Amino acid sequence: MASKSKIKRGSRVPIPSQKPFATTLTSNLKETFFPDDPFRKWKKQPFQRRLLLGLQYFVPIFEWAPRYQFKLFKADLIAGITIASLAIPQGINSSLVPPLVYAMMGSSRDLAIGTVAVASLLYTDILGKVVSPTDNPREYLHLAFTATFFTGVIQVFLGLLRLGFIVDLLSHATILGFMGGVATTVSFQQLKGILGLRHFTHKSDLISVLKAIFSQTHEWKWQPAILGCSFLFYMLLAKFYSKRKPIFFWTSAMAPLTSVILGSLLVYLTHADNHGVQVIGHLKKGLNPPSFKYLAFGSPFLGSAIKTGAITGIIALAEGVAVGRSFALVKNYHIDGNKEMLAFGLMNIVGSCTSCYLTSGIFSRSAVNFNAGCQTVVSNIIMSIAMIITLLFLIPFFSFTPLVVLSSIIINAMLGLIKYEEVYHLWKVDKFDFIICISSYLGVVFGSVENGLITAFCLSVVRLLLVAARPKTVMLGNIPDTVSYRNIRHYEFAQRVPGILILQIDGPINFACTNYLRERIIRWVDEEEDRIKNCRGQSLQYVILDLGAVGSIDTCGISLLEEVTKLIERKSLKLILANPGSEVFKKMHLSRSTEIFGRSTYIQQWLRQSKHAHS
Amino acid sequence: MASKSKIKRGSRVPIPSQKPFATTLTSNLKETFFPDDPFRKWKKQPFQRRLLLGLQYFVPIFEWAPRYQFKLFKADLIAGITIASLAIPQGINSSLVPPLVYAMMGSSRDLAIGTVAVASLLYTDILGKVVSPTDNPREYLHLAFTATFFTGVIQVFLGLLRLGFIVDLLSHATILGFMGGVATTVSFQQLKGILGLRHFTHKSDLISVLKAIFSQTHEWKWQPAILGCSFLFYMLLAKFYSKRKPIFFWTSAMAPLTSVILGSLLVYLTHADNHGVQVIGHLKKGLNPPSFKYLAFGSPFLGSAIKTGAITGIIALAEGVAVGRSFALVKNYHIDGNKEMLAFGLMNIVGSCTSCYLTSGIFSRSAVNFNAGCQTVVSNIIMSIAMIITLLFLIPFFSFTPLVVLSSIIINAMLGLIKYEEVYHLWKVDKFDFIICISSYLGVVFGSVENGLITAFCLSVVRLLLVAARPKTVMLGNIPDTVSYRNIRHYEFAQRVPGILILQIDGPINFACTNYLRERIIRWVDEEEDRIKNCRGQSLQYVILDLGAVGSIDTCGISLLEEVTKLIERKSLKLILANPGSEVFKKMHLSRSTEIFGRSTYIQQWLRQSKHAHS
Repeated sequence: MASKSKIKRGSRVPIPSQKPFATTLTSNLKETFFPDDPFRKWKKQPFQRRLLLGLQYFVPIFEWAPRYQFKLFKADLIAGITIASLAIPQGINSSLVPPLVYAMMGSSRDLAIGTVAVASLLYTDILGKVVSPTDNPREYLHLAFTATFFTGVIQVFLGLLRLGFIVDLLSHATILGFMGGVATTVSFQQLKGILGLRHFTHKSDLISVLKAIFSQTHEWKWQPAILGCSFLFYMLLAKFYSKRKPIFFWTSAMAPLTSVILGSLLVYLTHADNHGVQVIGHLKKGLNPPSFKYLAFGSPFLGSAIKTGAITGIIALAEGVAVGRSFALVKNYHIDGNKEMLAFGLMNIVGSCTSCYLTSGIFSRSAVNFNAGCQTVVSNIIMSIAMIITLLFLIPFFSFTPLVVLSSIIINAMLGLIKYEEVYHLWKVDKFDFIICISSYLGVVFGSVENGLITAFCLSVVRLLLVAARPKTVMLGNIPDTVSYRNIRHYEFAQRVPGILILQIDGPINFACTNYLRERIIRWVDEEEDRIKNCRGQSLQYVILDLGAVGSIDTCGISLLEEVTKLIERKSLKLILANPGSEVFKKMHLSRSTEIFGRSTYIQQWLRQSKHAHS
Repeated sequence: MASKSKIKRGSRVPIPSQKPFATTLTSNLKETFFPDDPFRKWKKQPFQRRLLLGLQYFVPIFEWAPRYQFKLFKADLIAGITIASLAIPQGINSSLVPPLVYAMMGSSRDLAIGTVAVASLLYTDILGKVVSPTDNPREYLHLAFTATFFTGVIQVFLGLLRLGFIVDLLSHATILGFMGGVATTVSFQQLKGILGLRHFTHKSDLISVLKAIFSQTHEWKWQPAILGCSFLFYMLLAKFYSKRKPIFFWTSAMAPLTSVILGSLLVYLTHADNHGVQVIGHLKKGLNPPSFKYLAFGSPFLGSAIKTGAITGIIALAEGVAVGRSFALVKNYHIDGNKEMLAFGLMNIVGSCTSCYLTSGIFSRSAVNFNAGCQTVVSNIIMSIAMIITLLFLIPFFSFTPLVVLSSIIINAMLGLIKYEEVYHLWKVDKFDFIICISSYLGVVFGSVENGLITAFCLSVVRLLLVAARPKTVMLGNIPDTVSYRNIRHYEFAQRVPGILILQIDGPINFACTNYLRERIIRWVDEEEDRIKNCRGQSLQYVILDLGAVGSIDTCGISLLEEVTKLIERKSLKLILANPGSEVFKKMHLSRSTEIFGRSTYIQQWLRQSKHAHS
């Protein structure tokens, strides 16, 4: 009896109190943009501690540096020197300052920083139209620095606006396909080095690459091919052994670096560079000159520079963060999109002042970094230091490094990144994710990196819209001897309550699903009536809609509830809306619908009464 | 005891049996594209009955015609003649055959069919570039018919693919703003007629219209202004009285038609057409010649015709269906997007064979139709018949109809369509819907119809994505003396279970929300631990995630559950996933996660035991 009176007392849930608009807005914005509540730790702390926490939050190096151990440093050292050996033949300047900035600000542990091919392409495409890089190289260079500066500004801006959740829209399936696709195309591009070709295409899609390779079969050389294959074989062998016996872990990690050293020695001793093996060759000595005085804010082409900066900035961001997330997923840690945007942005602003083009996380180098066993972002610092030492002292030695060794290092890193098993796992668990993954892969392989990302992104959004447009409705049955109700198709011992149809709506009700829900609910009722007619059971009297799982609703959803009430009443049945959440209840009240619906009661209490009535 | 053993027996829910891929695919496709299960009625019916039902489904006239009553006809007659009077000065041919086709196939009761300004604009824009309409009018005309034909083909195609749910993405808020915006601009456009201007802009945005009006103040004429204002006053007065006294309903409905007759008589008697009042003037007699032999399938410009057809077709569809839905919402009936697409498509295919340009539902004419009290689509048939009679016999009379009367009829209809109260209602109930509505309005008024629709559509999609990216999580508490658990913030008498944190996730788990959910769940746990520390309660031991409302999940969601399990275990707590739905359970099983999670049990049973343990 006590229990009954208690339930009675609570049978009318009060309408949630109307909060001022500003309060609701603030709490909604906070939930949307600051779900992790980053400043929670700061509360009730003295000012100095707050300052430290703030510094640690925005500049992660202050957080992890005190805990950094020598064990990690060994791994990072090897990885850092390995990626430095890759960076030397590519843009030197851009591998010096930006990695240092990223090491302080970034939240990825595997990302290696450098110039991105896509950005260079877009620079020539957009900036090259207003200033010719051949006729007017000085002005072009200054405009390029200016564009890089604006890239940084826009990236910081996005980060401050907390738009990092855009990065969340790149799903695991998208990234899996993207990674496999890039690994495929990058591997094929390395055939340039393996076959010792001098001319090659700037396009990255498979067909252009294959065309470029097979259109110049007469240029193929056997010397670099043999060299490359042997080093690749050596590295694969090292990886194989290090996997079988964990004690040999270092063999795999050291393999790329030893390959570079061995390769350079070989060329130095045999003079293979005179027999068809291309080497890095002569490099200019000296460090980055400052370039902030070249930023051309007064240029008549400032508009083009800003446009170039914005477009390349967003693409580089999407690509860089996608690369970072790829490796974070593999190692199962978390990347904060907002911090990444800030880090990339500052990196480019500083970069533009120290003679660097646009930089971002590069896939091939990060893969080599990952493969060499890097543990933290310190490998980027090592790379930077190694670059400085190289520039100052080791240039003569590295000029003998054969390009083909770099190619085989990259291929070796790529081979580990095409994850058949995971794609099969997607196929097994979720077919739509599989389709997204494959379209991302095909988009990258046969189109471009952006094509792949955009296709997969659009498919992912369509999937979200489909889910939003088709929320699940399930019929509930009573679990015997309890007041609990569960999905009747899932729990086989759940029983129908005679004369009552209980439906639960899973998920938010919005404009995209109202037409569907109307049809679907009416169909549930029709089917239940048919079933009862066939088995001559007790005829239907009540329909209960359990709204307990409807987390949010819009005005269309409220109209839907009104419409369904009318439609069900037209069938001489009574509709009861049970267990509405606070948002649903509040909006029903605001739109005066509670008067139409009557007061909502507990589904439990209501059914207990009805069972008494019927039994 | 009996109850306990029963629950025990059922405590392990079997993993849903693995269905073949084809079965799952079929049922998913059916749920997505045929939620209304349109063929359900046909089952277990003899063949003839099936044929009839099929005919009724695809050609709705067979469904409603037998039930059509004289009472409805009276209203439709007046509305039909009224819209015919509007159609006469506009495209005559296109108001003859297409409305008849729509009357048979369409599911709107208020839509009036005619040529759309947007389509004509796009025709000149795209087709005019390949064939000049002034130099080569014959070929241009044939290409236009061909484009119309392809418009129809594409619309039928979309309808057959059951892509009608695209139309569902136009929410009530979008349409409210769209309707208000079009009503505003159309009203201002009528100032052309009211002020007796001869030259005017083809653009529809408010600024261009106002510029066109105020740039030629010297052309303003007082005669049509006085005539127009008096007729407008007459119609508003009639509407006012018909609202106050329902017996005068007919005065409002008859007002536009009597205005046309009175206006024409007035001009005929006073020869006002010689004193600045523009009239419809001379019209060609004769009906539509067939044009299917002109369809230029062999033309070298077929590609352009197909492109024009596709673009205009989709725009006309979106606009036409938006208009149809607007009025359906006002009268509270339902429009089937798929049927509408089929009807529009067939209408345009037939139209292209009978010398018609692209037709669709037009807003201004539908508003007049609605305002004149139309009941069914019969008003379109009446319009068609009235057009034939006019063309054959009444042309001389209608040539005296002053254009200004038509303008005041349209303004009168528009004024009823700007719904302040509903917009205020949106603001009160749902601020985001209000923003969507206002942006749709502003887009239409200051941009164009398409601008408004696209802006509002994008905002709506962003809203859906935000909801999908931020599913609600609520903390549950025990309702005393029951085994039920409810939202602890909403039900004030729900009580925490000592040592246990129960969270419920409302809505599907997908890639867009996994990062958010991870942060949010960990924050719930942290906050609960802080609270317990402050009040020195029993320390937390278990976290229960109730997945009962998670209707669908993707592979990222499964990984999230695994990650959260690990994170919570790292805090020396135990995570229990309670009550997973069949899809969640199946995918957990497929990805071997059930082994990580242990077996899932009833939240009820589990808590009962734990309560025993703790009390």
